[in-house]
Amino acid sequence: MHALVERLYPLCRSITGDGVRATLDIVDEYVPLERHEVATGTRVLDWTVPQEWNIRDAYVADSAGNRVIDFAASSLHVLGYSVPVSATMPLAELRAHLHTLPDRPSWVPYRTSYYRPQWGFCLAQETLDALPDGEYEVHIDSTLADGHLSYAEHVVPGQVPDEVIVSSHVCHPSLANDNLAGIAVATFLARALARETPYYTYRFIYAPGTVGAITWLARNQDRIDRVKHGLVLACAGDRGELTYKESRRGDAEIDRVLRYVLGASGRPHRVTGFTPYGYDERQYCSPGFDLGVGSLSRTPYAGYPEYHTSADNPDFVCPKAMADTLDVCREAVAVLDRNRRYVNLSPYGEPQLGRRGLYDSLGGRSDAQEAQLAMLWVLSLSDGEHSLLDVAERSALPFDTVAVAADALHGAGLIKA
Amino acid sequence: MHALVERLYPLCRSITGDGVRATLDIVDEYVPLERHEVATGTRVLDWTVPQEWNIRDAYVADSAGNRVIDFAASSLHVLGYSVPVSATMPLAELRAHLHTLPDRPSWVPYRTSYYRPQWGFCLAQETLDALPDGEYEVHIDSTLADGHLSYAEHVVPGQVPDEVIVSSHVCHPSLANDNLAGIAVATFLARALARETPYYTYRFIYAPGTVGAITWLARNQDRIDRVKHGLVLACAGDRGELTYKESRRGDAEIDRVLRYVLGASGRPHRVTGFTPYGYDERQYCSPGFDLGVGSLSRTPYAGYPEYHTSADNPDFVCPKAMADTLDVCREAVAVLDRNRRYVNLSPYGEPQLGRRGLYDSLGGRSDAQEAQLAMLWVLSLSDGEHSLLDVAERSALPFDTVAVAADALHGAGLIKA
Amino acid sequence: MHALVERLYPLCRSITGDGVRATLDIVDEYVPLERHEVATGTRVLDWTVPQEWNIRDAYVADSAGNRVIDFAASSLHVLGYSVPVSATMPLAELRAHLHTLPDRPSWVPYRTSYYRPQWGFCLAQETLDALPDGEYEVHIDSTLADGHLSYAEHVVPGQVPDEVIVSSHVCHPSLANDNLAGIAVATFLARALARETPYYTYRFIYAPGTVGAITWLARNQDRIDRVKHGLVLACAGDRGELTYKESRRGDAEIDRVLRYVLGASGRPHRVTGFTPYGYDERQYCSPGFDLGVGSLSRTPYAGYPEYHTSADNPDFVCPKAMADTLDVCREAVAVLDRNRRYVNLSPYGEPQLGRRGLYDSLGGRSDAQEAQLAMLWVLSLSDGEHSLLDVAERSALPFDTVAVAADALHGAGLIKA
Repeated sequence: MHALVERLYPLCRSITGDGVRATLDIVDEYVPLERHEVATGTRVLDWTVPQEWNIRDAYVADSAGNRVIDFAASSLHVLGYSVPVSATMPLAELRAHLHTLPDRPSWVPYRTSYYRPQWGFCLAQETLDALPDGEYEVHIDSTLADGHLSYAEHVVPGQVPDEVIVSSHVCHPSLANDNLAGIAVATFLARALARETPYYTYRFIYAPGTVGAITWLARNQDRIDRVKHGLVLACAGDRGELTYKESRRGDAEIDRVLRYVLGASGRPHRVTGFTPYGYDERQYCSPGFDLGVGSLSRTPYAGYPEYHTSADNPDFVCPKAMADTLDVCREAVAVLDRNRRYVNLSPYGEPQLGRRGLYDSLGGRSDAQEAQLAMLWVLSLSDGEHSLLDVAERSALPFDTVAVAADALHGAGLIKA
Repeated sequence: MHALVERLYPLCRSITGDGVRATLDIVDEYVPLERHEVATGTRVLDWTVPQEWNIRDAYVADSAGNRVIDFAASSLHVLGYSVPVSATMPLAELRAHLHTLPDRPSWVPYRTSYYRPQWGFCLAQETLDALPDGEYEVHIDSTLADGHLSYAEHVVPGQVPDEVIVSSHVCHPSLANDNLAGIAVATFLARALARETPYYTYRFIYAPGTVGAITWLARNQDRIDRVKHGLVLACAGDRGELTYKESRRGDAEIDRVLRYVLGASGRPHRVTGFTPYGYDERQYCSPGFDLGVGSLSRTPYAGYPEYHTSADNPDFVCPKAMADTLDVCREAVAVLDRNRRYVNLSPYGEPQLGRRGLYDSLGGRSDAQEAQLAMLWVLSLSDGEHSLLDVAERSALPFDTVAVAADALHGAGLIKA
Repeated sequence: MHALVERLYPLCRSITGDGVRATLDIVDEYVPLERHEVATGTRVLDWTVPQEWNIRDAYVADSAGNRVIDFAASSLHVLGYSVPVSATMPLAELRAHLHTLPDRPSWVPYRTSYYRPQWGFCLAQETLDALPDGEYEVHIDSTLADGHLSYAEHVVPGQVPDEVIVSSHVCHPSLANDNLAGIAVATFLARALARETPYYTYRFIYAPGTVGAITWLARNQDRIDRVKHGLVLACAGDRGELTYKESRRGDAEIDRVLRYVLGASGRPHRVTGFTPYGYDERQYCSPGFDLGVGSLSRTPYAGYPEYHTSADNPDFVCPKAMADTLDVCREAVAVLDRNRRYVNLSPYGEPQLGRRGLYDSLGGRSDAQEAQLAMLWVLSLSDGEHSLLDVAERSALPFDTVAVAADALHGAGLIKA
């Protein structure tokens, strides 16, 4: 996964443009993508697809012609969606277009101006401080023109058409944790799922933040009721502990599954309530859709100093942390995919398990006892109201033990889904 | 407010009679009152308006003619609703009619006998101890005769006919905290509200305790569904911390507003559950009406040693404490009056706030960010289920910030009430 | 009660057979029983009544003819439901049929094999260790043949046909706490109830565990909706603190009553959630029936080392503990039987209690005040939603005070059930 992060890192992504396309090209090498291009001006919910932005070169050069700020060195150096400019001006005038982080003098900030025409450069405070007064040549070779917004999907078909969406944003330029780690974890989760036939159909969405998710929602409005659960993956690779942010509903099944998996795993972690800011859970959980979509990250949105700066680079992202995030995703899928509500078909008194061989079919002593308890719990709570996750939580038995017990009872015809 | 308490203090109030009328005359100088007189014998709910009691003079005099207990010194000296008496008797016989507080030998207790014909005097234990044996002249010049029960209302008209009632009892004689402080706070709240046009119509009720509230309820039964919220004000001026007693419903909007306002203000305070004793919340919250009426006091009902004694005098009531009680009432009104449930008219995805100028219309940096968060929260929770108070509590943003954000969104046509 | 435990102790009970009948004969001396015999092969819910097992003698004798294990010494020495055997075999071969507790070398375990034909002996590890190698004569004079399953009922008629069941299992041989103490407490509770006419009809069920309760349920399926509440009594006599295990519903009235009674009594105790193992609450609370049946014990099921061993003998059972368990049962009955939902017939404002003499009918000062508060609470909460137990919990007044107040109000025609 870290190699994928490193490959994607130099590209200049934005909410539209060739940087996004190049990103999707690379992801497509890992999992085949269905690509979508939506024309500028298309109405998407309350929004309109903006003009497409592309940039070839940008720099500030001193009077000697030395590039003192150079887009080629890092895509962060240009204010996102900068309009083209070609001019010479004194430093005093240029300053109004320069963005720094005075508190972190060696870091370059990430800034954009999507919906108001501006141009600008981002640089380290140290670099700015070292610039002598004088005339500077300013050059941004960008285009802002009608074009398209690009996004892509990858679908792992399941046993049922009901869907789980896994969404990551692809609009941030050279920032590693925010959003490349999420893209990488999503992609490797898709590859893992593709090796089996999951219960649910899993749809992976790679789209620019906000307007991309809104575009996806606009174009899938008539089939949105297929989406039963979802996860937004972001900030998935820093060294902080895992954070699950609940869906707006707070008690959606995905919320219960993630709380259970994180709790049962013994990992240090946080669970936070929904807030209407962060990543694209904002859109999926807007009150009209109100989907059961939570967000999994390590240190959450804006919660670390490197956030939206040049310090969020591939070194900031830890391979072990990404692997851990992926593990939790797979554990969550393992619970979500098997979490069913059963009905006990022999609900009057306990059915005689011994007669059906359900006491004997099991190996080791304490294992056998736990399996037997799990069967009694599944029988007791299978009234159509309780899911296997309810059973696991009420009984304090591992979900896996409960699911195996349910399989045995289902095999014996004692319960039905 | 303290001046009003001092003016009202000497009057001999009871559940009927001229003391109540004189009290209402004085309040009427502050806010114009609509006066009501309900005849003795009138059936009111399960009760009957009692005979009217008036008293002109009362004393116990020793054999030398010295008044050793004198109603002119304090209205507390006579048992409320004492029947007339004129007799001479030895101290031994008189004792059966004398009430003292042996544990507080310098205080005079407050006693009444509304519904059983008796006569009696209240005095300090010290005074009693100093009385030599001998004959005493006993004189109570009172009348208990058909007449009227008096109460009054003051209405501050609002934008809607839905009402908030603010009720204080006017039946206690020379007791300052119980009930004059409540009368004063209610009156000054009415004056403050009259300077604006509140959302709700505010109805201030000044009535004798129990039978007065019952009379008001009986006469307003057919319009009681207009009463949406209410507050009983009592013990509103002692130096203790504020106490809010919830309505019988416990989760009425007034309960949530007072809990929020007291909590958000950082004031030390208590919130207690409903109990079917105390002041006239007993009547407003009786199960047939079950109104959303809570009670605001400082030290609650019977919770301080001075309660129902001569020590509950104007010195016991603190101007600062009354001002603080009034402040909380006004803060509660400010929340209650703006607490609306809105519906997001653009609930699919987030509406584009920037296009509508809702990102720019705001001043200072962190203010602007808080205002923007508040708009996102209002949009997210405006599904017709959540009130602005819900938004404030979920978001941990100040109610005022949330209400201002809602106004901005309402102005932009993004939400409707 | 302890004498009854001692009389029952030597009998060899099992899920069928003469040991059960002899047990019921003795109980019948205390409370008259209605006896039931259900033939082998009868289908009962998902189960079938098994063959009847009886045993006359059983021993292992050494080559000198000395009985080294002797059923006559303790009914625990034979594996329950052992098939007959008569053979001679070396110790090595015999060992496969011997059950001991290596960790508790002086105790004899209790083992059964109801549904798989086997034979075996249980003995102390010490005894086994002392056996020299050699040939042993093995003899079990048992019969396993078509017959009957025996159970019995005792009914205390109440004022209403709605029933409370009190169930204890009668299938364990020489084990005192598990199950004789439960049988004894149930029997003495029945005797106590018979001296009055309770509100509910109380049905005491003495039946073998699992298949006996299933048989009772199968034969009472069409009248099961009469069963409103129930208690399973087991492990009722050890020195541990009381444990109430909730019904599957968790908030059934019996659950609330037991929690209240145990809490209000100040006794150290535990309340545990429902689990689908333990005693016959498993059957009564199976999801098809889902009765409001909880379980009262001292140290619960399998929670003490003496459980299912020869150490669970009459010395392990403490007369004081059994008396305490009985006291709690009686306190629970006293609440359950009087716990009614009333409707206030004068719900608009408070009714005038003084006029009805309800302030005066009471003795001592603080008693009178508490009684008056209780009346106000009952009036306030009697909206058909709240039971007297709700009133007691909300008001923090003793249930008895509340019930007495309700009686007074009912007598005055102010509330109806």
